[in-house]
Amino acid sequence: MSSFTSSMKFIVCVATGKRCFSRVGFIGLGNMGGHMARNILKQGHKLIVFDVDELAVSNLTEVGADRASSPADVVKDVEVVVSMLPSNQHVLDVYNIKNGLLSSAKRDTLLIDSSTTDPFVSQTLAKEAEKSGVNFVDGPVSGGVNAAKDGTLTFMVGGSKGNFELAKPLLKSMGSRIVHCGDVGMGQAAKLCNNMLLAVSMIGTAEAFNLGQKLGLDLKVLADIVNSSSGRCWSSELYNPVPGILDNVPSSKNYEGGFGVSLMAKDLGLAQSAAVNAEATIPLGSLAHQIYRAIIAQGSAKKDFSFVYQFLKGTR
Amino acid sequence: MSSFTSSMKFIVCVATGKRCFSRVGFIGLGNMGGHMARNILKQGHKLIVFDVDELAVSNLTEVGADRASSPADVVKDVEVVVSMLPSNQHVLDVYNIKNGLLSSAKRDTLLIDSSTTDPFVSQTLAKEAEKSGVNFVDGPVSGGVNAAKDGTLTFMVGGSKGNFELAKPLLKSMGSRIVHCGDVGMGQAAKLCNNMLLAVSMIGTAEAFNLGQKLGLDLKVLADIVNSSSGRCWSSELYNPVPGILDNVPSSKNYEGGFGVSLMAKDLGLAQSAAVNAEATIPLGSLAHQIYRAIIAQGSAKKDFSFVYQFLKGTR
Amino acid sequence: MSSFTSSMKFIVCVATGKRCFSRVGFIGLGNMGGHMARNILKQGHKLIVFDVDELAVSNLTEVGADRASSPADVVKDVEVVVSMLPSNQHVLDVYNIKNGLLSSAKRDTLLIDSSTTDPFVSQTLAKEAEKSGVNFVDGPVSGGVNAAKDGTLTFMVGGSKGNFELAKPLLKSMGSRIVHCGDVGMGQAAKLCNNMLLAVSMIGTAEAFNLGQKLGLDLKVLADIVNSSSGRCWSSELYNPVPGILDNVPSSKNYEGGFGVSLMAKDLGLAQSAAVNAEATIPLGSLAHQIYRAIIAQGSAKKDFSFVYQFLKGTR
Amino acid sequence: MSSFTSSMKFIVCVATGKRCFSRVGFIGLGNMGGHMARNILKQGHKLIVFDVDELAVSNLTEVGADRASSPADVVKDVEVVVSMLPSNQHVLDVYNIKNGLLSSAKRDTLLIDSSTTDPFVSQTLAKEAEKSGVNFVDGPVSGGVNAAKDGTLTFMVGGSKGNFELAKPLLKSMGSRIVHCGDVGMGQAAKLCNNMLLAVSMIGTAEAFNLGQKLGLDLKVLADIVNSSSGRCWSSELYNPVPGILDNVPSSKNYEGGFGVSLMAKDLGLAQSAAVNAEATIPLGSLAHQIYRAIIAQGSAKKDFSFVYQFLKGTR
Repeated sequence: MSSFTSSMKFIVCVATGKRCFSRVGFIGLGNMGGHMARNILKQGHKLIVFDVDELAVSNLTEVGADRASSPADVVKDVEVVVSMLPSNQHVLDVYNIKNGLLSSAKRDTLLIDSSTTDPFVSQTLAKEAEKSGVNFVDGPVSGGVNAAKDGTLTFMVGGSKGNFELAKPLLKSMGSRIVHCGDVGMGQAAKLCNNMLLAVSMIGTAEAFNLGQKLGLDLKVLADIVNSSSGRCWSSELYNPVPGILDNVPSSKNYEGGFGVSLMAKDLGLAQSAAVNAEATIPLGSLAHQIYRAIIAQGSAKKDFSFVYQFLKGTR
Repeated sequence: MSSFTSSMKFIVCVATGKRCFSRVGFIGLGNMGGHMARNILKQGHKLIVFDVDELAVSNLTEVGADRASSPADVVKDVEVVVSMLPSNQHVLDVYNIKNGLLSSAKRDTLLIDSSTTDPFVSQTLAKEAEKSGVNFVDGPVSGGVNAAKDGTLTFMVGGSKGNFELAKPLLKSMGSRIVHCGDVGMGQAAKLCNNMLLAVSMIGTAEAFNLGQKLGLDLKVLADIVNSSSGRCWSSELYNPVPGILDNVPSSKNYEGGFGVSLMAKDLGLAQSAAVNAEATIPLGSLAHQIYRAIIAQGSAKKDFSFVYQFLKGTR
Repeated sequence: MSSFTSSMKFIVCVATGKRCFSRVGFIGLGNMGGHMARNILKQGHKLIVFDVDELAVSNLTEVGADRASSPADVVKDVEVVVSMLPSNQHVLDVYNIKNGLLSSAKRDTLLIDSSTTDPFVSQTLAKEAEKSGVNFVDGPVSGGVNAAKDGTLTFMVGGSKGNFELAKPLLKSMGSRIVHCGDVGMGQAAKLCNNMLLAVSMIGTAEAFNLGQKLGLDLKVLADIVNSSSGRCWSSELYNPVPGILDNVPSSKNYEGGFGVSLMAKDLGLAQSAAVNAEATIPLGSLAHQIYRAIIAQGSAKKDFSFVYQFLKGTR
Repeated sequence: MSSFTSSMKFIVCVATGKRCFSRVGFIGLGNMGGHMARNILKQGHKLIVFDVDELAVSNLTEVGADRASSPADVVKDVEVVVSMLPSNQHVLDVYNIKNGLLSSAKRDTLLIDSSTTDPFVSQTLAKEAEKSGVNFVDGPVSGGVNAAKDGTLTFMVGGSKGNFELAKPLLKSMGSRIVHCGDVGMGQAAKLCNNMLLAVSMIGTAEAFNLGQKLGLDLKVLADIVNSSSGRCWSSELYNPVPGILDNVPSSKNYEGGFGVSLMAKDLGLAQSAAVNAEATIPLGSLAHQIYRAIIAQGSAKKDFSFVYQFLKGTR
């Protein structure tokens, strides 16, 4: 069995005493990927990295990573590659183009795509990987830049049980919670479903508090009532969009930090496209996507996604 | 002070040892009101009731209530009246028509409207009550028929602090949680805001699970992920709309019992009208209202409101 | 028959040779009402006017109108009163309060409400009018300030056939098209239904052209295609929201003039409330209302309603 | 110039005296394509056809077409190929797979894709075609099965001016109106924008008439008012969704014939995906898509798209 053969390649890290891959590749050193790659290094793995941004690469080589000249160059001497890229198209390009990961990886290599993409992209890549005996799992994350830095990301993994177990120790170096969501693509599916529900309940919370305020309610009182009643949700309880209800959330810090409007719009766009293909009816999810697009059109792409409260409330 | 004067009228119930009104009126003995009136009787209050439905009245007189011939007849000898009626118009009629409560109540009488109405209705009635020295609070409930029966309703009360304290002991005979939401109308406002958020997060949950299912996710796995992530809400965690995820919720019992589609549509209609008047922007709340209207148009008014999952999923 | 008796009161205007009411009252001399009242004067009618704004009244008395001190004062010596007021509440106040039109009008007086209101308001007033033998019709208008000035408004009239015929000659002094829509309230209903469809097709046009532009289409080519195909509507053909497609429409004049966002939002709010009461499902109409509310929240209440194109397109 | 060289290949048809391609290929003989291919034959062209459905092929060979064994077999001896396929994926497969049209076509062949697809699909195929000197235009149609039969389709063509002129005579054998919409992909873009606006105005019309009916309006009166006012659109005027307003439209024939709900849902899905990629805000277009998806979920996929009136109105 290929997963068993692969697991034979694990060695024990001197630094941590845990089993680990001897040599790891990483592609995509952006806001998230840069921190994730550093955490792999910290666990004592050897790391070879690639990014089109030279500065991002230098930041990693300075702390001990090796530099590759292409995705194909990353994959040629490693047992496992993690990719963290900004879009479907970037992922398809890195995996699929001439000299991409799929055509260059050796048999039994494990490819982990932590980008957030359409589940169909993951499934397409997995099928092609299978033809040449390469293992693929999707493992998108939640938790944002701070969790990437602290190594406390949640990984939602789609792939065979064997590949999940194979990937888990490495993912543990970057995250605190590693969840098996099902076959390939199901990591993406779980992330998109969760984030769509998050967007809907955040906008719903913003609307309820906007209406409450215009009707004359004290919004701290409303928060107490909602959070002990059937309206309770993560957004009302732990990430309230009204400034001053909770300390230390973006709404109380001018909607800075957190999970940006443009990132939420991207995830909702992926959910929307997946729903079109799957012929699933998602009226509120679709409208949530449109609302975040309108917020971007009005110039607030960089605010935290709880800014929707201010968008609805207005300034007049 | 009128609230102090009124409170002088409390006597100590022999049965319970608690302070109570010596004589209570109750108008509206429907599914909810019938149970609520019984619970008042059980606490040892004297009760006089009115309803247009003779059978509903007989049910109460059999267990010790007195019968009144009109709202005016209810209010003439009591210190407090509770009303539980199905619509804005019923409330306006009972309070406002010739021989209605407002024109017949004695000075310092406390009128508690537990109907769910537009906050403006409560505020209008309170202003008229004030002219003749009558006290008014709105006190809509949540919890449904079972909580009405068990005396475990939540009351969301709008009115002066004095009137809230005055109403509280009586409300305690019918409910387990009595919350002061602010001035008159704010009980209604809090209920409508909570229920609008509930509808939005329920539909959002139904959409996320509908999309997940069509993408191939195991829905129990999805529930685990969502409920430990940012998509978590009361609807996903305690009232999941997918049959078989939770025992003992309506979705696992053919969507029977629970909180009906038509009641949710009514509350969303009230929230919508309040938002039109208050000029509040509530796009998802509005769409939630329309979705429940469409479910009614398709013939499922009597199902529990979590039936929206089946509506979206379809039967083809 | 009361309509016959009333029609006996017509006299022939010296100025125009047409039958006319000898003496007309007018209440509400705002942007629309001021022009409408002048056009009545121009047709040789005697006119007595009332408004809370003293300047608005002076403008009319300078050109020959008499001044009344209250609605009751307007109605005491006339056979017909036209009202043109900004909201449900203003109409209810002018007609219903102590010394309002309904309690002061003589038998057989004709009251024409040209305000845009909820059809239920018209129906409520008509029922009260009937009790004292007073005639009521609703006659909301379309066409905007320019048509009010030029006397080319369209009147959508709800009332009995007799009252419609009675009102028609007077309405002809202010409008070019007088349409009988059915019983009382149906003028309002027709206006709200038309304007809701107008808002939906305007936003739909704005979306289609926004999408077309982002996909790379020449928007004049798109306009030609749409206007000779099944997407054709009044908004695409005669009031295109894209600057430069048509001359002499608001979009080509910085979205100034025309039919303001806040007026459209008001009509959509009335349609929404009427739909809540009538239990009609109107998902796009509801969302159109919310979109115009969001445009107001973003500070563009005074732009023409075709500004939605810019709102969706954004500025980034 | 390749377009000039290609045009050299035109010969004059004996039957019609018009210039025509000597030999034409056709792929996709479904409800639309079968009629379109017959109309090409009728104009005296030699035709070679391919479909996976053997019966569909026999129907054409019986009237004189030749049979090909694959897309590659179609293209090997012709100057022009028309394709009419049901989805993005079918088009990509026919053009792109091993032995697909693109790898098999000779230099200067003209490929006309009349399928409705994402504009990005057309643009991707055109780029690949260009590499081997093959010409590609997108030419989706409107008009439905009857227009396909009668040869009165509208073709919306995207491609260079030269290729448009080259394609035009052949398209004239199938359609009455051949419109040049811009570069490759713009035929698709124009069709999707038009159909999205059509869906929005159809649903808007259905909502306006649904509201009107519930408010008590005579719907023939409402149709007269709307069609002479600003609510006028193709759907209200020529394809009214209310039974009995117009003769000879699907709503007056039990919503049979016409443009099916599932086809409209497909086009709206394409518009939605294109908007996600183009980052265009289309709230009503998105909701229209969801409404048609809900109609499918409720079991009415095969009704004409004006059936939305019945969906909203309901049956209770």
